Amino acid sequence: MRKKKILIAQGGGPTMVINKSLVGIIEEGKKNNYEIFGSKNGVSGIINSRFVELTKIDKKKLYLIENSPGAALGSTRDKPDEKYNKKILKMLLKKKINTFFYIGGNDSSDTLRIISDANPDIQCIHVPKTIDNDLVLNDHTPGYGSAAKYVASVFAGINLDINSLPGVYLGVIMGRHAGFLTAASSLLKKKKTDGPHLIYLPESNFSMDNFLSDINNIFTKKQKCIVAISEGIKFSNGQLVGEKISKLNEMDAHGNIQLSGSSMLGDYLSNQIKIKLGIKRVRADTLGYAQRSFLGCVSEVDQKEAKQLGKESIKFSKKYDSSFSMCIEERDRNLNVYNIKIGKNKLIDIGGKTKYMPVNFINKKKNYVSNTFFKYALPLIGKKIPDFGSLI
Amino acid sequence: MRKKKILIAQGGGPTMVINKSLVGIIEEGKKNNYEIFGSKNGVSGIINSRFVELTKIDKKKLYLIENSPGAALGSTRDKPDEKYNKKILKMLLKKKINTFFYIGGNDSSDTLRIISDANPDIQCIHVPKTIDNDLVLNDHTPGYGSAAKYVASVFAGINLDINSLPGVYLGVIMGRHAGFLTAASSLLKKKKTDGPHLIYLPESNFSMDNFLSDINNIFTKKQKCIVAISEGIKFSNGQLVGEKISKLNEMDAHGNIQLSGSSMLGDYLSNQIKIKLGIKRVRADTLGYAQRSFLGCVSEVDQKEAKQLGKESIKFSKKYDSSFSMCIEERDRNLNVYNIKIGKNKLIDIGGKTKYMPVNFINKKKNYVSNTFFKYALPLIGKKIPDFGSLI
Repeated sequence: MRKKKILIAQGGGPTMVINKSLVGIIEEGKKNNYEIFGSKNGVSGIINSRFVELTKIDKKKLYLIENSPGAALGSTRDKPDEKYNKKILKMLLKKKINTFFYIGGNDSSDTLRIISDANPDIQCIHVPKTIDNDLVLNDHTPGYGSAAKYVASVFAGINLDINSLPGVYLGVIMGRHAGFLTAASSLLKKKKTDGPHLIYLPESNFSMDNFLSDINNIFTKKQKCIVAISEGIKFSNGQLVGEKISKLNEMDAHGNIQLSGSSMLGDYLSNQIKIKLGIKRVRADTLGYAQRSFLGCVSEVDQKEAKQLGKESIKFSKKYDSSFSMCIEERDRNLNVYNIKIGKNKLIDIGGKTKYMPVNFINKKKNYVSNTFFKYALPLIGKKIPDFGSLI
Repeated sequence: MRKKKILIAQGGGPTMVINKSLVGIIEEGKKNNYEIFGSKNGVSGIINSRFVELTKIDKKKLYLIENSPGAALGSTRDKPDEKYNKKILKMLLKKKINTFFYIGGNDSSDTLRIISDANPDIQCIHVPKTIDNDLVLNDHTPGYGSAAKYVASVFAGINLDINSLPGVYLGVIMGRHAGFLTAASSLLKKKKTDGPHLIYLPESNFSMDNFLSDINNIFTKKQKCIVAISEGIKFSNGQLVGEKISKLNEMDAHGNIQLSGSSMLGDYLSNQIKIKLGIKRVRADTLGYAQRSFLGCVSEVDQKEAKQLGKESIKFSKKYDSSFSMCIEERDRNLNVYNIKIGKNKLIDIGGKTKYMPVNFINKKKNYVSNTFFKYALPLIGKKIPDFGSLI
């Protein structure tokens, strides 16, 4: 077997544990005495020849990096076309790279498929990451557990806050296509009466009437209502609710102001509640980049798995000659013990595909999650979570 | 001396450590064998006779409560008028309460002043809390250190995130009048090149031209720019920037949409940057309630001080007969050792007054903080903060 000369890159939106996978690959690569390079800012670093030697980084630096959010090598949103891919190939061949590890979501996996199809001599290995948890054929994805812990911790705090000063709270959560992260808002509930009381997901058709009547019912009973809403909620015709609001606002804006922002959905829904339901105290927060990059809120389970996936990707690259996408295999939901099995998928089966929340993760009324979801997601956020209490 | 029968209440927006002060009062009160009651939802619980016995709560429950965000007794935004105050007085006398501890901001302190003026037999003690850190005659206020740590941790993560995927990032931070919390966005910077690169505070007049040119300068040099903006930024005529945008938008909205939301400021500024500077990747986040209630991000210094203030308030209530407001006395800024001294102020000197960022906490260009601010604020967020690193 040829001695491996490997290149690692990171693509797409960073996560809190994307660097765990990076360091996993580096550490395991060093054990094998591989030459290890990194490309800065994903594939764009390859075509612009921005490489960094990774073999000689000391342990202290690696420790710092693996525990940092953000992509330590830099990332990119570039989606290579045919011409771009040719440049990548040319540079990989020039640098004599024979194994390319790309840590990223399904776009990154698709990039790898195209490169490996064009030159089967370069082994391309996709190491999954995404806070959206929307990769098919993966039980869950590194990055999700930590983002889920952050969102759950926000809502656990909000629950105590809204208990203190009752009203309606809307929290808008990342995830354009899949509702896994929005669903995680429920994970630290202790009592049935705790918030969030309602959860709206992209997987279920959104109806403004039902939304308002759901909130009205709960507010009438409890004088408070905490709601988690995915940024990706859609009407039954498939149109994003956020997009419709944006367009209406554009049409209405004749003068100085033309708003279009990520926070518009929450502000709009909050105003609807005030106007249509006559509730005074309504607050909407649109959770921001902190969902994927907050310093100091990370799931130890997610960290461990992200690193393990990195290490195993080196072992798999020795065992198999082909290109592939690493994965955490689907768990048997009937087992009460949590453990994972690392496996691999074909690149073509991952790229460009989206995994949605399965129907049995959502309640019948389509405004909350099921116990099956709890059982699925709770182990992923880890156990290092403060307990809490109240007197009211 | 009469045996004390004490009542505790919590008012205004909760903080991450408001329950530390509560438990400090309870623990110290129990040592003195006082009868201890709590009023649910601040002063509104007094007039509605919603009391809770606090003397017999077990240690485990107290431990849970003191480590929870939110006001464990519930809070209120009620600002009592004369009639309301008469009801409070009547109820306190009926319940034979002789010492009333109100944990809150300057509104709560003003309420106490009115009650104690009307009946000097009831000793009224204000125990400060506010994430805004805007109480006069207080070096700093319990609640600020933890909120500051949260905001600093968001920006430390954002810095790594924007390093990975360059662009302009705007984070809008709570604090309608004072910029202390916005300024805290800078506290975890390691290198001069790290974000935030610009900080806009309510204490300095906001100019859209300067704002855009500041960002343009930094973006041209670094291809990235991270900006912290207070929700309370004002034009030189005193008008809130957020308010002006809201009004312009109202005037423009003839149809279905009339937006008015807390996130509008960030969205508007973000659009201005896109349109006027032609920068494509601009993201605005409006940091939400998590600033005061996130579960799992708390300053151990803030926790310790909030509890100490609670305990000392009982000791002070024995030592002095009058009503007063507890405080952390102004530190000597020339000393390099951090320690605090607990003292008291007259209620009339606290209520209705606002402390602003001193001029020497702000840079000359009014778009950043000074080293004097760093020296002031850094000890307050504690030392339990993860270190981080990057390869780019």
